[in-house]
Amino acid sequence: MSLKIGITDTMFARFDFFKSALSVLEEYAGIVTWERYTVPGIKDLPVAALKLIEEKGCDIVIAMGMPGPKPVDKISAQVASEALQQVQLMTRKHVIEVFVHEDESHDPKILAKVCHNRARDHTKNAIMLLINPKWLEKRAGKGIRQGFEDAGPLIK
Amino acid sequence: MSLKIGITDTMFARFDFFKSALSVLEEYAGIVTWERYTVPGIKDLPVAALKLIEEKGCDIVIAMGMPGPKPVDKISAQVASEALQQVQLMTRKHVIEVFVHEDESHDPKILAKVCHNRARDHTKNAIMLLINPKWLEKRAGKGIRQGFEDAGPLIK
Amino acid sequence: MSLKIGITDTMFARFDFFKSALSVLEEYAGIVTWERYTVPGIKDLPVAALKLIEEKGCDIVIAMGMPGPKPVDKISAQVASEALQQVQLMTRKHVIEVFVHEDESHDPKILAKVCHNRARDHTKNAIMLLINPKWLEKRAGKGIRQGFEDAGPLIK
Amino acid sequence: MSLKIGITDTMFARFDFFKSALSVLEEYAGIVTWERYTVPGIKDLPVAALKLIEEKGCDIVIAMGMPGPKPVDKISAQVASEALQQVQLMTRKHVIEVFVHEDESHDPKILAKVCHNRARDHTKNAIMLLINPKWLEKRAGKGIRQGFEDAGPLIK
Amino acid sequence: MSLKIGITDTMFARFDFFKSALSVLEEYAGIVTWERYTVPGIKDLPVAALKLIEEKGCDIVIAMGMPGPKPVDKISAQVASEALQQVQLMTRKHVIEVFVHEDESHDPKILAKVCHNRARDHTKNAIMLLINPKWLEKRAGKGIRQGFEDAGPLIK
Repeated sequence: MSLKIGITDTMFARFDFFKSALSVLEEYAGIVTWERYTVPGIKDLPVAALKLIEEKGCDIVIAMGMPGPKPVDKISAQVASEALQQVQLMTRKHVIEVFVHEDESHDPKILAKVCHNRARDHTKNAIMLLINPKWLEKRAGKGIRQGFEDAGPLIK
Repeated sequence: MSLKIGITDTMFARFDFFKSALSVLEEYAGIVTWERYTVPGIKDLPVAALKLIEEKGCDIVIAMGMPGPKPVDKISAQVASEALQQVQLMTRKHVIEVFVHEDESHDPKILAKVCHNRARDHTKNAIMLLINPKWLEKRAGKGIRQGFEDAGPLIK
Repeated sequence: MSLKIGITDTMFARFDFFKSALSVLEEYAGIVTWERYTVPGIKDLPVAALKLIEEKGCDIVIAMGMPGPKPVDKISAQVASEALQQVQLMTRKHVIEVFVHEDESHDPKILAKVCHNRARDHTKNAIMLLINPKWLEKRAGKGIRQGFEDAGPLIK
Repeated sequence: MSLKIGITDTMFARFDFFKSALSVLEEYAGIVTWERYTVPGIKDLPVAALKLIEEKGCDIVIAMGMPGPKPVDKISAQVASEALQQVQLMTRKHVIEVFVHEDESHDPKILAKVCHNRARDHTKNAIMLLINPKWLEKRAGKGIRQGFEDAGPLIK
Repeated sequence: MSLKIGITDTMFARFDFFKSALSVLEEYAGIVTWERYTVPGIKDLPVAALKLIEEKGCDIVIAMGMPGPKPVDKISAQVASEALQQVQLMTRKHVIEVFVHEDESHDPKILAKVCHNRARDHTKNAIMLLINPKWLEKRAGKGIRQGFEDAGPLIK
């Protein structure tokens, strides 16, 4: 069984998400292959995700971007997210959204760390969705976060 | 008549909604079967619901998650809800949304109770939609709530 | 000519909209029949409307519900409205939305009256759309309201 | 060449947009015909526009309405606009939206004037889109407004 | 290999985006051709983009407009953006959005410069997406901006 993972990322982002995702993909190199597609900004990700699935045969896509801090950027993120949903419903494939909002931290170093961790965590999630769904089931309801520390369950 | 109920839940949620839903499903074990599908977060629920219906033959799906308290989380919830609507219109099947927003209560114990009750109440609603629509009709306009106390009708 | 009107309503609503709609439907009993479908809340209305049209052969649907007063309820109403639009575009049939927001009045008696009148007025509109479009044309641009008093035209 | 223009308007609006549109249509009576469809409110416009195109053979539609001033009305306008977009993408025909928000002016006379001018200007735009696309091209980037005075280009 | 680029712009915009885009298109005249389609406002862009792709055979479209500063204008921009996403998912072609919001600067000269640069930069992006995807890949995660200075990567 060989699984193909699509990665789409942006020029707009201020962090090289692909590199972080790659560090996970390489751990699973025996069972997964990957295809990358870079676009200008987050609103260009949905059609890229669709093309990765339809034209490149990807089984799942990870869509990575960094929405800016202004109201207009928040709307862009919403529009992109909505279209990423459509892609999933058109193709019956998961598209895992890895968005790090530029205002999640004012410290560039922390923000970079969040980017790195979120890209890595979600790449792992994507692979598990394909090869080991029980891995996710065991973590259901546990307040798992990507990029920041886990929130944990409400009642320990 | 055997009915199949799909349950999709998330790793992000801080409560094990599935366990609460299960406590109702088991009461109806003679007439319903179920299938579970855990995903990372609420934006991964819609395609999971679609796959439960199309690939697993579910007659109805219960989609359970816990949106966070930040503006960006509210947008995620909206995006997920919109896509859950699409799934219903594509499949002509109900997808009952069980979302408990993390800011519905500041007390983790109350929040956990709301999660438990809402999951249970909506699981019952889902089963009644399939086997006994008159049960819902009798409750129409009665200000029924899931998770908190019923609001009741405007004029008693 | 016999026309079939679908009515979908909710358990969440605090008013029995169906009863009010029925009082109009019965006036037209010679030419219209009806079918009712009760669901838990407003986000369950769209697929119910679709099923009333596709599976029950309804020529038009009236979707009635009462969105709550909180921001999360406003989003739910928006999500439901968007999906009710999709149903119309999928089926080429009107779905008349009868939503009374719980914060349209703080007085339960006034709110109940708005519910009653809006349900009645829109049931009449639905029937006229089917049997007498000229009736609407004569009222075009006249600031007609359902539930509250008419606003009237800008320039009398 | 005979072109058919669909006009859909509402009972909710406080101005007779159709009359204003008609004053332009009649100037082009030799080359255009028209069909009118009145609905209760702006959320009923999209399916009316779709029916005008599909069932009445209209080449373009002008959808006219007056969203109210409250937040709930703004959401209604957004929902209607989104669905008007879907109609265009389903039919590959333009649907020109003529919405005048009730809070664009507090003076009913000014508001009525805006309604009249916007309806007229967009009816002209619709006709030009069909018979003379170069007419629009010459006006590109010129800060053209409908209803109020033109804003003009940034740099004169 | 000859590639066809669609350009759709508006009468509402206060800047001649097409002229700026053209200055880039002409640099690539040997390998690209173009087709222009001017519409009244930004909500008319999506169906124009669809027609450029389907009826004129464009391989990619650049949709250019200038949303106004008011809340109602922000909603219009969101509605237009959502529909531009749909066009891309329907056609599997990129539609690059070049929107300059009128409130990005209060100085008309700066705003005009942003318009010019953003139109040029995105026209280049569109051409590179078609002829040289590696060009974009090299710029991934570099905080590239169109119209204003690049933000650069978080960690230099």
